[in-house]
Amino acid sequence: MNVAIIGTKFMGKAHSNAWLNTPHFFDMGIRPVLKVVVGTDPAGTQALAENWGWQEWSTDWREVVARPDIDIVDIATPTYLHHDMAVAAAEHGKHIFLEKPFAVSLEQARAMLAAAEKAGVVTYVNHNYRRVPAVRLAKKLIDDGFVGRLFHWRSTYLQDWIVDPSFPLTWHLRRETAGYGAHGDLGSHSVDLARYLIGDVAAVTGMTANFITERPLPGAGAATFSAGSGESTESGPVTVDDASFFIAEFDNGVLGSFEVSRFAPGRKNYNYFEIYGSEGSIVFNGERMNELQVFSRNDPAYAQGFRTILATEAGQHDYIANWWPPGHLIGYEHEFHHGVVDFMRAIETGGTIEPNFYDGMKEMEVLDAAMASARNGQKVSL
Amino acid sequence: MNVAIIGTKFMGKAHSNAWLNTPHFFDMGIRPVLKVVVGTDPAGTQALAENWGWQEWSTDWREVVARPDIDIVDIATPTYLHHDMAVAAAEHGKHIFLEKPFAVSLEQARAMLAAAEKAGVVTYVNHNYRRVPAVRLAKKLIDDGFVGRLFHWRSTYLQDWIVDPSFPLTWHLRRETAGYGAHGDLGSHSVDLARYLIGDVAAVTGMTANFITERPLPGAGAATFSAGSGESTESGPVTVDDASFFIAEFDNGVLGSFEVSRFAPGRKNYNYFEIYGSEGSIVFNGERMNELQVFSRNDPAYAQGFRTILATEAGQHDYIANWWPPGHLIGYEHEFHHGVVDFMRAIETGGTIEPNFYDGMKEMEVLDAAMASARNGQKVSL
Amino acid sequence: MNVAIIGTKFMGKAHSNAWLNTPHFFDMGIRPVLKVVVGTDPAGTQALAENWGWQEWSTDWREVVARPDIDIVDIATPTYLHHDMAVAAAEHGKHIFLEKPFAVSLEQARAMLAAAEKAGVVTYVNHNYRRVPAVRLAKKLIDDGFVGRLFHWRSTYLQDWIVDPSFPLTWHLRRETAGYGAHGDLGSHSVDLARYLIGDVAAVTGMTANFITERPLPGAGAATFSAGSGESTESGPVTVDDASFFIAEFDNGVLGSFEVSRFAPGRKNYNYFEIYGSEGSIVFNGERMNELQVFSRNDPAYAQGFRTILATEAGQHDYIANWWPPGHLIGYEHEFHHGVVDFMRAIETGGTIEPNFYDGMKEMEVLDAAMASARNGQKVSL
Amino acid sequence: MNVAIIGTKFMGKAHSNAWLNTPHFFDMGIRPVLKVVVGTDPAGTQALAENWGWQEWSTDWREVVARPDIDIVDIATPTYLHHDMAVAAAEHGKHIFLEKPFAVSLEQARAMLAAAEKAGVVTYVNHNYRRVPAVRLAKKLIDDGFVGRLFHWRSTYLQDWIVDPSFPLTWHLRRETAGYGAHGDLGSHSVDLARYLIGDVAAVTGMTANFITERPLPGAGAATFSAGSGESTESGPVTVDDASFFIAEFDNGVLGSFEVSRFAPGRKNYNYFEIYGSEGSIVFNGERMNELQVFSRNDPAYAQGFRTILATEAGQHDYIANWWPPGHLIGYEHEFHHGVVDFMRAIETGGTIEPNFYDGMKEMEVLDAAMASARNGQKVSL
Repeated sequence: MNVAIIGTKFMGKAHSNAWLNTPHFFDMGIRPVLKVVVGTDPAGTQALAENWGWQEWSTDWREVVARPDIDIVDIATPTYLHHDMAVAAAEHGKHIFLEKPFAVSLEQARAMLAAAEKAGVVTYVNHNYRRVPAVRLAKKLIDDGFVGRLFHWRSTYLQDWIVDPSFPLTWHLRRETAGYGAHGDLGSHSVDLARYLIGDVAAVTGMTANFITERPLPGAGAATFSAGSGESTESGPVTVDDASFFIAEFDNGVLGSFEVSRFAPGRKNYNYFEIYGSEGSIVFNGERMNELQVFSRNDPAYAQGFRTILATEAGQHDYIANWWPPGHLIGYEHEFHHGVVDFMRAIETGGTIEPNFYDGMKEMEVLDAAMASARNGQKVSL
Repeated sequence: MNVAIIGTKFMGKAHSNAWLNTPHFFDMGIRPVLKVVVGTDPAGTQALAENWGWQEWSTDWREVVARPDIDIVDIATPTYLHHDMAVAAAEHGKHIFLEKPFAVSLEQARAMLAAAEKAGVVTYVNHNYRRVPAVRLAKKLIDDGFVGRLFHWRSTYLQDWIVDPSFPLTWHLRRETAGYGAHGDLGSHSVDLARYLIGDVAAVTGMTANFITERPLPGAGAATFSAGSGESTESGPVTVDDASFFIAEFDNGVLGSFEVSRFAPGRKNYNYFEIYGSEGSIVFNGERMNELQVFSRNDPAYAQGFRTILATEAGQHDYIANWWPPGHLIGYEHEFHHGVVDFMRAIETGGTIEPNFYDGMKEMEVLDAAMASARNGQKVSL
Repeated sequence: MNVAIIGTKFMGKAHSNAWLNTPHFFDMGIRPVLKVVVGTDPAGTQALAENWGWQEWSTDWREVVARPDIDIVDIATPTYLHHDMAVAAAEHGKHIFLEKPFAVSLEQARAMLAAAEKAGVVTYVNHNYRRVPAVRLAKKLIDDGFVGRLFHWRSTYLQDWIVDPSFPLTWHLRRETAGYGAHGDLGSHSVDLARYLIGDVAAVTGMTANFITERPLPGAGAATFSAGSGESTESGPVTVDDASFFIAEFDNGVLGSFEVSRFAPGRKNYNYFEIYGSEGSIVFNGERMNELQVFSRNDPAYAQGFRTILATEAGQHDYIANWWPPGHLIGYEHEFHHGVVDFMRAIETGGTIEPNFYDGMKEMEVLDAAMASARNGQKVSL
Repeated sequence: MNVAIIGTKFMGKAHSNAWLNTPHFFDMGIRPVLKVVVGTDPAGTQALAENWGWQEWSTDWREVVARPDIDIVDIATPTYLHHDMAVAAAEHGKHIFLEKPFAVSLEQARAMLAAAEKAGVVTYVNHNYRRVPAVRLAKKLIDDGFVGRLFHWRSTYLQDWIVDPSFPLTWHLRRETAGYGAHGDLGSHSVDLARYLIGDVAAVTGMTANFITERPLPGAGAATFSAGSGESTESGPVTVDDASFFIAEFDNGVLGSFEVSRFAPGRKNYNYFEIYGSEGSIVFNGERMNELQVFSRNDPAYAQGFRTILATEAGQHDYIANWWPPGHLIGYEHEFHHGVVDFMRAIETGGTIEPNFYDGMKEMEVLDAAMASARNGQKVSL
């Protein structure tokens, strides 16, 4: 299966690594072929191609997406480009591996889903945390009844990379390119995890904050797809949220919270959740992503406590048999390998993989409802 | 100064211990005299008196509160009794040491404050966490600019003592005796800490949940002031919240959250908060109450991280010089001693202590607003 | 039962608190009466008496120990005074509550034990950690087979109060007054815990270190029993170890380690141990003394991990029913209450309490053997 | 530069991954070419070659090591094979990348070092932990004076994979193939880290234990280089240590400990050390290998505590700029990439890399001395 990737920055690298290396670790029926990489910056695109062994490179994504020899399109670009690329890829019958967040609006999300359903292609939205072995263990524990009747979901996703007011106005900080700020970038992960582990959301109420309202423009060197790095003397308005907190009622009666911010010093990638139920509890922290904490009310009363499971036991924890011995950690990149192997299996078997475009659309419903609530001060039902 | 205490259960014991022992550890100008204890159950009241050395006991709080030889009234009864007792005590010119939560309604809260202000007495609401050395350190760090401009308050207070549906319908679970459920009992602590550390709340939006709607009635032996322990075959409706989550905007622009629940297995007394600001961050966990975690953006970039401060250094951490050497922990009860010593000093110097009845009233404003929001699905401004 | 206490400093305070308050929290058949306190400094001794309600005070311990109205002698003085006081107390038929470390030499230890055995009095050595609820839970788990066949004991006890070279040459740092340095002060706790939890030691091999060899003499104000605080311009040699590490074979085949130091910055009262066995493992840290970590090989393979038990559940964890609700911590001082209640019960029932003078003597055997090994570079069998 | 690897099991996979992928993440002058893989099992060797893209495969390591087109020999075989392979490779002028532990005896170690020195080749012993960013940070902090005068090294390396008595008698458990047991396998890592961070060892005293003395033989299918997995009905004696504890004096006066065991349930890869010095302290735990805990006595006295540094900041922490954003963890395998990049740079620049064969020999000196001490019950000076 020939893969074309669009996007050459951080995610281009992370995805290239996954396409290249997954077959070395996992038995795969169909193997991906690294066919062509697409970027706006010719030099950078060529360099990525050479480094990772993409056979060709291009600056014209529309042309590439239409090529009959391409089977899979991997979209690893800023959010505002997802819709056009995904719809085009679907229309050409390509299977789609899409980096999150899904889209800049629910309208886009629905169109993307419709195009994919019409085309009957396999779609995947790369919410990588679903494929962390510790998170898979959380899912198993819930499904097995270890947690019992669910009471609470408490999630937060905190980072601190824009606390400095001199951080430039990159595409992440503008409504037209990013859709939302922390709400979309981080909140989409939390919403996806909540839907995976808890279920669908029934109603939300929320508030957002914007702490730095104006930032220097990125340097002239910043390409279309890029976050930029230089800095100019001009500045412009931040048009997305810096932080977003919302509360949710789930269809199953769970009372939950979602709190994301890019203004939490010391939190680097603090994708954190707690789940409480009638039989036990679960805690996950992405900064210690190999671990899961669980509490069971069914342990002897004198010996109950949160236990820290190092989810690195082959045969016990998903995907681990393909990596290293117990206690030898896997890292961030491995989640991408897990996405690739499951995506390829879905294609091979004619099946599906989750989260897919339907999940992406549902995630946007929740995010949009929460933002509407923050704007109008009212609870919004879904 | 002669003290009368009303309440003979868990809080009667905790308060008696503090009145008796604080002078052994702290230099005090005026010393409290344990004069009289008041309860509804004669045998239990007498037993408490004998055990702790209260000189007299009584079952008639109105009579005791009116006695001219009483200088201080300590109210350690269920919440619904606070109003009448506090107003009466104030009218008789007694200084008042009041267990939290403050009142069952904002209306009561305002009346209590008015009575105290009119009488000019010293009042104290026993939000004991303000006098944990680690929390005092948090306050100092904020005041000293260690945290910089404040961005976020994230608090939660979780317990699990009523997860079992067979737990009886004690006074804590009925609207008329408790006012609120977890929202009042636990949320009042969080709101008090937020006002202490962050400032006043401007607007709130929230939701509540009730997971167990009907519970067995407590056994016949349960006295008026008591939580009861027996169990009957009849049941009745739970009329307070089991959990309450709300989001707040503060006057200073902070975006915050408050999440409390009695349905969080494994959390025994998880009074937890995180504070984020432009220069650093703070984390406190009541289950490790001798510790404070702090992060500073001003540490060298290669060596930044949350540090765990064991707040047990005499001369460095409040109150510690009166206890034990570094690393030798203090416990829950010691917070009560700290309240007593500061309360007595306020009386002696003609000063005040915080939190007092004004703070209690402000706390009720926030709690009421959040509950109104949960009921009507709208953001409520204060 | 009339109690006489000898010692008026930190331990005088901690013990006074325990004698006074234990009956308020625990049902006790015989209650201790705070009869007389003995110190070398008349003013300090009188002040302690007044503060804690000791009926009398004295500067002549020999006279007090001989008084017929004294039933219990509490020895809370520097180590080198233990032998004479304990032997005298035993000879007068007094029950003895003795602060650790036991003695400055094995010879003294044996004489103390012989005197107590001859007199038939109840003796107690205040290794307070045996009565931490979390440590009691460790004992229960071992006895119940939770840990299985024992493999390892790994203990350390680290502090940092003398890292600064300007810390004066107090009695703790001189061979003639302290016996050993960290080896005796901290190591005695670890050896006592190991004997309690694992069993007797068969052979040891060790090394010690002395990092600061000369220190300023304490100020003139330092009394005989006191650590002193002032500082003089003269200095003298440190004649005890600053740190001591030794390895042990136990009678039951366990391979263990004991590592103590007063030169471990950041460790305030880090009395820490790990136990490993065929079925599970245990970890305790005195700086989080309400917690115990345990691991069970009998949990489901996918959900094994160290669990952190908050040992604060009434009915489940020893002594807790007499204190506070779950999750409400107890502190350092409470261990002394537990010692008092068990000591009084032993007297009342004609029983014994552990650790007693026999245990003190056995502890000295291990400490002496380890020090001999450090001196002569050879393994020493017991 | 053409690489030949000998060894096809777990380490064959880990090394292949590193040879293949390091150039994708790091700028490298000379790039390794995956030329030939050597194993004893033809099918497995061929499979490894195909999976990772080794151009050729062979079962004759002597022939391959002699090939003129081979520049680098990577020895990833059981310990007892290291000597012959390394000496042969050196004699043919190959640069050598050698998996630890170094050798089965000090005699072998010296011969290997002599051969390499004579040949003037670049040698590397793959003590991967030296290239964990958090460990590099520890080194930097020590070198920069953050820790001050060093007092203590406390290391332990604990695993639990052979606690079950039915685990078979693999090559790791026989003296002739493994040299030592936990002492060599795990202890060699600790000794290497201690030499890197603290300095050379002056004297040691130790004890070892063997808990399971007889085990079932591995199944017939176990190849020469392999750990085997099947099980036979026959059994044989375990001839290496299960656990080894020793204490060390370092040349610079540090008092240290080394404790390793394969009998520590719940510890999967617990490569842990603590360092204490006059200005601060350091703690590392391999099961949380992206973190380093540090304590500074130079922080304000009221705010001192162990801080947890997530060593994932590009520009601040070694190697991280080539991986992912802050807070996005790297895993076990990445340490191998770091070894490869530094090894290739040493070759390119005509320099050296540490640890090399000299370090391997020094490590064996310490291990041998400790084992001699355990055998004869005497302190052994180096």
